[in-house]
This record gives sequence, structure tokens and C-alpha cells, in this order.
Amino acid sequence: MHTVILAGGGGTRLWPLSREQYPKQFIKLFDDSSLFQKTLERALIFSAPDEIYVVTNEKHKFMVLEQISEKEIEIPEENVLLEPLAKNTLPAIYFAVKTIAERNGDTKITVLPSDHLIIANEEYRKAFQRAEKLAESKLVTFGIKPTRPHTGYGYIKPGKKIDGGYEVDAFVEKPDFEKAKEYIEKGYLWNSGMFLFKSSIFIEECKKYQPELVKAFEINSLSEVYTKVPEVSIDYGIMEKTDKAAVVHFEASWSDVGSFDALYEVFEKDSNGNVAKGECILLDSSDNFILGERLIATVGIDNAIVVDTRDAILVCSRKDAQKVKNIVEILRSRGDNRAEIHKTVYRPWGSFTVLEEGEFYKIKKLTVLPKRRLSLQRHYHRSEHWVVVKGTAKVTVGDKEFFLRKGESTFIAAGEVHRLENPGLITLEIIEVQIGEYIGEDDIERFQDDFGRV
Amino acid sequence: MHTVILAGGGGTRLWPLSREQYPKQFIKLFDDSSLFQKTLERALIFSAPDEIYVVTNEKHKFMVLEQISEKEIEIPEENVLLEPLAKNTLPAIYFAVKTIAERNGDTKITVLPSDHLIIANEEYRKAFQRAEKLAESKLVTFGIKPTRPHTGYGYIKPGKKIDGGYEVDAFVEKPDFEKAKEYIEKGYLWNSGMFLFKSSIFIEECKKYQPELVKAFEINSLSEVYTKVPEVSIDYGIMEKTDKAAVVHFEASWSDVGSFDALYEVFEKDSNGNVAKGECILLDSSDNFILGERLIATVGIDNAIVVDTRDAILVCSRKDAQKVKNIVEILRSRGDNRAEIHKTVYRPWGSFTVLEEGEFYKIKKLTVLPKRRLSLQRHYHRSEHWVVVKGTAKVTVGDKEFFLRKGESTFIAAGEVHRLENPGLITLEIIEVQIGEYIGEDDIERFQDDFGRV
Repeated sequence: MHTVILAGGGGTRLWPLSREQYPKQFIKLFDDSSLFQKTLERALIFSAPDEIYVVTNEKHKFMVLEQISEKEIEIPEENVLLEPLAKNTLPAIYFAVKTIAERNGDTKITVLPSDHLIIANEEYRKAFQRAEKLAESKLVTFGIKPTRPHTGYGYIKPGKKIDGGYEVDAFVEKPDFEKAKEYIEKGYLWNSGMFLFKSSIFIEECKKYQPELVKAFEINSLSEVYTKVPEVSIDYGIMEKTDKAAVVHFEASWSDVGSFDALYEVFEKDSNGNVAKGECILLDSSDNFILGERLIATVGIDNAIVVDTRDAILVCSRKDAQKVKNIVEILRSRGDNRAEIHKTVYRPWGSFTVLEEGEFYKIKKLTVLPKRRLSLQRHYHRSEHWVVVKGTAKVTVGDKEFFLRKGESTFIAAGEVHRLENPGLITLEIIEVQIGEYIGEDDIERFQDDFGRV
Repeated sequence: MHTVILAGGGGTRLWPLSREQYPKQFIKLFDDSSLFQKTLERALIFSAPDEIYVVTNEKHKFMVLEQISEKEIEIPEENVLLEPLAKNTLPAIYFAVKTIAERNGDTKITVLPSDHLIIANEEYRKAFQRAEKLAESKLVTFGIKPTRPHTGYGYIKPGKKIDGGYEVDAFVEKPDFEKAKEYIEKGYLWNSGMFLFKSSIFIEECKKYQPELVKAFEINSLSEVYTKVPEVSIDYGIMEKTDKAAVVHFEASWSDVGSFDALYEVFEKDSNGNVAKGECILLDSSDNFILGERLIATVGIDNAIVVDTRDAILVCSRKDAQKVKNIVEILRSRGDNRAEIHKTVYRPWGSFTVLEEGEFYKIKKLTVLPKRRLSLQRHYHRSEHWVVVKGTAKVTVGDKEFFLRKGESTFIAAGEVHRLENPGLITLEIIEVQIGEYIGEDDIERFQDDFGRV
């Protein structure tokens, strides 16, 4: 069985933790793993590594590859499919299903969102086994038995009982509290966003209900495909229209982690109902979600969310957790890049963190992964001082090449062609002091790059 | 008239803004001035610069001198009196009065706390003029007409009316709300902590009521004086006992800035009752005090205090503002130096900020004031890289001396005797990358120092 992992989301409801360039699924919230990495591990239950496909946005390519390699799962790079634009779930799924079918012929495919949290217990495995049988003739979706009248989830109304599950009577939108209670009484299920189907049936239904989309994908240029393809969800575009929809129900501890309040629910609480990640002193404070890089002290604070990052702090009442996206909208409308990036920016070769910025200087900590190197490059307006604080660097300046060990430093004058490489087996850490009249990231001319960025 | 400014307080109720090494009176809260600097300006109303004395703790000497020099007030350095230990207000005041009397003979002296906020309007000036006359025979204190039944202030019960003020019937402790209302109805006044008296009368009363203190101050060694002297406030030690107490009343906008809630009251509010200092986005939030270095976003938060510093964040309900000191007590009990210092540490030559710290390295930004220099020093366990990002440095390494301009750098190997100096007229800024097996601040051997720290 093949598995398609959807990793294209750009959620902003966990700002300032998540940013456009660093969405929810890649944040390491749990035991130093991201939701994406946990999804990879779940995919391995039913698929071999080379049967796993990931669909993500172009700009997250290197983060996806990095997180896959951290888990030492041998997914071929050609299985990571890159969307030039985000067009909701249906184009992403169709892109993957079409690719898999072209390479492998007709096959059963599981679709997993990468930004949900679910425990893959025995119930989960059995549900997928039942779904696999149903998928001979159905497009199977998975419905979680609700534990409470949640107003943040969509629901599925099961229809006629069939072997292993139900037909689907209706997909219903997020309800209000009263409606949610009614749905639960009537046996509706939470719509988990996971699917299992045969590629042939799925493609057939797409041809029937989304001919425009199928046609768009016949174009050779992917960027053109994505300009033309309609923006549509699989639920709206196919599942609500097809007469082949089935739902397999099961009990599971599941969350869409759609807000800090949802995140609060997922974690274990202390005796005062607090979830405290990072260093905290909580006095007379209860039922809070506290997460930070610095020391956070609270006094007399209840039902609040406090999230601290290097360049922004959120303090929010738990009941208003859904409104965090409004903050991001405000930042975007101002062109403020704190909606988009963290102080730590991920690059294919590693990452950098801006430690301090003045009018004419910028101090960065660069982390270069083993065997990676930055592009061969030149800056016109800034000189750079490099001091190695960990590992060994191979440095190219003009036609000279030399090594720098921990505690050693070098200087790159403005205008000089240079390159930084980590030839070693452990991470290289460099402190870079940039000085110049202009220190924007766009003052860079690349001559050669291992990651196609010239 | 002489003025004594009490600048020895080490308040912790404004943590994390205030720290033991950087108490409330030195924080620049208002128009880039500190409460201490505002007190200096008030002192100039009645005293010439050389008639102004400051009593402070030894460890704050350089901060006091720096803040005086920033305001370009020519207070002689010998007028800054340094206490080796904090022993409450009476020893501090007696120390200053005795010194002034020895140098100048009998004189009238005003005592001003430096950690209160008061507007020196016409009323204020007139009150001091009335007090000056009364001081011919009285120890005069100042009582502010209450504007509301405040439970955080001490009160003065005025007695018989005398020319310019009242005799004092009683000093009363902080009341509860009901008592405070009663006091206001009865015409009690807020105890402002300011005094005006003749040195001869004050010393006489000290001999009468605090002979042990007077005797302690006859010892030659100041550290011995402060070991022996009782810890006592002027109110408890003298004013409540003497029959020479008088109070001059006046109306003033006055605050002891004793908590973030008091600070909230002092500042102007926006239309939602928020005081926001620094960069904030406040959604559905009202009546908050928000102050930070980073972007702070709040959603659905009311009546809260959010204070952000480089290494610690406080989130506190306004009603619990007094409990902030409990956080500091917890930190102290753990030996956590975030009770004591900021990431930015003030030194007589300027300041340094720790930007980043790893196991074997530390990155600092050093700011050296014009014409100042660090000690001639040596480290055994760390090497240092210096990059100048602003100004010009004069560097001594071994027997070499050279200049470094903006964008230039140098390396100091472990074990080398070195010195950093700002010979110029503008501030010097240096990025220092320290690398070593041990990077504690105590790995320093000083050979010469302009500030007596060898």
C-alpha cells in the first residue's frame, strides 16, 4: 500500500511558534519530534519507505528532506512532490495519486494529513485493515468517535451500514455547541481528514466531478498546472459529490492541533491544570498553556496561553485561541516578516539565527550540517567575520582554501567570492559578524550551489 | 540648602525590569530618564550641584555616577556616599547628614527618596518653602493629600495646626481598604518619605533616640560602622519618637511606583485603558500594562501586566502585582542570578550584553563609553575575538598597541595580557566571541584598573 502525506499546510493559528516558512507540522512539539515526523512513523505501519510520498510546498522542500533524514527513513527524494502554490487538499492529493499511478499502476493509497495528532493504537490498525477491504469499491474516509461536542471539527453523518463501516450520508461543517451535542446523540463522527482508496477509482471520480482539475494536470509545466488548477478541498470537490464515499469509524485519541487551546488539551496537565513547557514559575496560576525559550513567571493568571519566541510573545486567553490568526493577518497587512519567518531561518545546508542587528551590522549564528556547504557567493556591501565555535570549517576565499578549527577565525572582505563548508561529521557552528552599509539578505550573488539556488 | 538623595533601594517588585544590581530608581521608565535622574532635577530647585549628596550602595556607585554625568550635573564625586550594606533609611540619612555637617557646619537639609515619582509643581515648591521655615525648630516631613483610599501607603495623622503645617499626632502603617477610607475622612495624609530639617536638630534627636547608631558612626572603618549600626527606618527610629515632628501638607501627583500596578496608574492610558510601552498588538484587550523589548501580542487579555526582558518574562494579574517579589524570592532561594542581574550588565566603563551562550563559548556586545577603558587583564581559560561594529578601539595585547576601526577585528589568545580602550568621542561597540573550556566571568586577573577593581 502507498501512503501520501500532506505536508503543504501553512497554518498560522500557532503563531508565534509557527510562521509561514515554518508551519505547524514541522514544529518539534512532542519528544523532539514534529507532527510531520510522527506521521512518517505512522505511514511506515502500512507502507515501505519507497511507497511513501510527501506533498509539500516548494519552499518547505529542504525542511521535509531534513526531517525525513533525521528519522533515518529511506524515502527517495523523487517521492517528495513539490507544489509551487497551495491550492487546498484536492490538487495535492491528485498530484500524488497521479504520480504514484503513473509509476506503479493501480494501487491502494492512504492519505494522511501531517498536521494532526493521533495515536496509532490497535484500533487504528484495525480500522485501516477494514478500510483496505472497503477500498476495493469505495473512497474510504475515517471517522473518529467524538468524545465531546467539539465545535472546531467537521462531522460525518454515517448512512447505511456496510461491511467494515458505513456509507456516508453527509459531510457537515463545524457546528455550534448545541448542534454538536445533537450530532453526537445522532452518532455523527469527527471528520479526520484521512483517506484510503484505489488510485483508479479516485482518478475516475476526479474525471467525473473535477474535469477541470484533471485537465490542468495534463499540462507539462507544473507552475502552469498550479496556476490553472482550481483551489478545492477533497471533501468539497469529491467526497460530498461521489456516491462511492464510505466511512470507517474507530475510537482514537485524535486532535487537529488547530489552536493553542487544542494543543493545551493534548498535553498532560500538572495538579493546577497547567501545561508548562520550558522554564516556568507559576504562582496562583491554573489551567494555562505556557511555552517558551526564556524564563516565564506568572502570578494570578488563569486560562491563558503564553508563548514566547525570540522575536515575539503571545499572551492570549484560551477561549480566544482561534483569534491568533488575526494577529498574523495584522502583521501580514503591515508587511511585517514576523508573520513569515523566525529569527532562526532554515536553509538546505542548516540554519542561521540572527542574534543581534544594528543599523550597519548583523550578528548571526550559522549551523552547517555535516557534509553540507553554502553556495559559492559574493556580497557587495558587507564584509564578514567568521569565528568557529564548534566543529571544523572548510573556507574558500578567492582562490585560497583553508580549514578553520574551533576558536579560529577569518575575514571575508566585501566583493570577495567565498564559500563555507562543513567537511566534518559533526555540526559546524560559526558566529558571523556582518558589517556594511547595507546588510539585507538579498545582497548575495551565487556562483555555484548544491541546492539549485543559483 | 543641601539635599540628600536616597538611592540605596534594591526593590524587586518591578522584576524582571528591576534586578538587585539594577534597582527601580535607575530604570529609564520616563522619557529616557530614570526616577533617580528625575530626583536629581528636583534637587536642583533648592540646591546647587555641590550641595547635592547621594547615598547609595557600593555596588551602584558607577551607575549613580553615570546617570549624574548623563544629566550633566556637576555633583562632586565625594558627594556620592557609598554604603557597604543596606541598613534601611536612618543609617543612610545619618551618614549623609553627619558628612554634610562636618564639611559645612549646621545647615538645612532636604531628604528625597529617589524611587518615587512626583511632579515638582508650584504647590511642591511652596510646600518646601513653608517647610524651610518650620525647620528652624522642627523635623519636617511631607504629607500628600490623598486622592483615594490607597492601601499601599503609610499615613500621617496631623495634630495641632502650626504656622505652615501641623504637628504630627501619629505615623500609621499601611491600612486595609476600610481603614484607608476612614483615614481620608479624618484628614490623614500620605507619608511621602521626604524630609526637611536642620542638621543640628536631626543629629541631636539621633543622639537622644538612637545613641547606638550615633556611636557606631564614630568608628573609623565604614564597613565596621555598617556591621554594627542597627537596621532602622527614619520613621520608626526618629520621627515616631521625637516631639519635634511636623508635617507640611500639599497636593501633588505622587506615586511610590511600588509595583507594576502603581506604574500602570502613573502612565496615560489608551482608549481601552491599556498602557503599552514598546511594540504591541492588543486585540480585545483592556486595562493592561504591557512593556517589552520584543513584539508582544495579546488576545482577550484584561487587567494584566506583561513585562518582557531579554531573559525573563512576567505575566501577572494587576491585582497580584504585589506578589511579584515572591518570584524574586524563589529565584534567590535557587541561587538563580536572574534575580540579580540582567543580560545587560553595567560596568564603570560602559556595559555588556550576553547575546548567546553555549557550553564552550559566549558572545557579548560590549559598549565602551568615550574616554573609558577596561582594566588591563588576562584570562587563563578563554580566548577572545573582537570585532568593532561602531567607533574606534585602542587595543593593547602584550607589549603591542594598535587601533581597530569599524569592521576590523583582532584575536586575544588565552593567557595574553590585554586591554580595550575607547580613545574616541563616540561610543565604541565591540562584538566579543569568547571561546574556552571555562567561560565564567570570574576568570579574570586585573593588573591595572581606572576604577579601583584590581
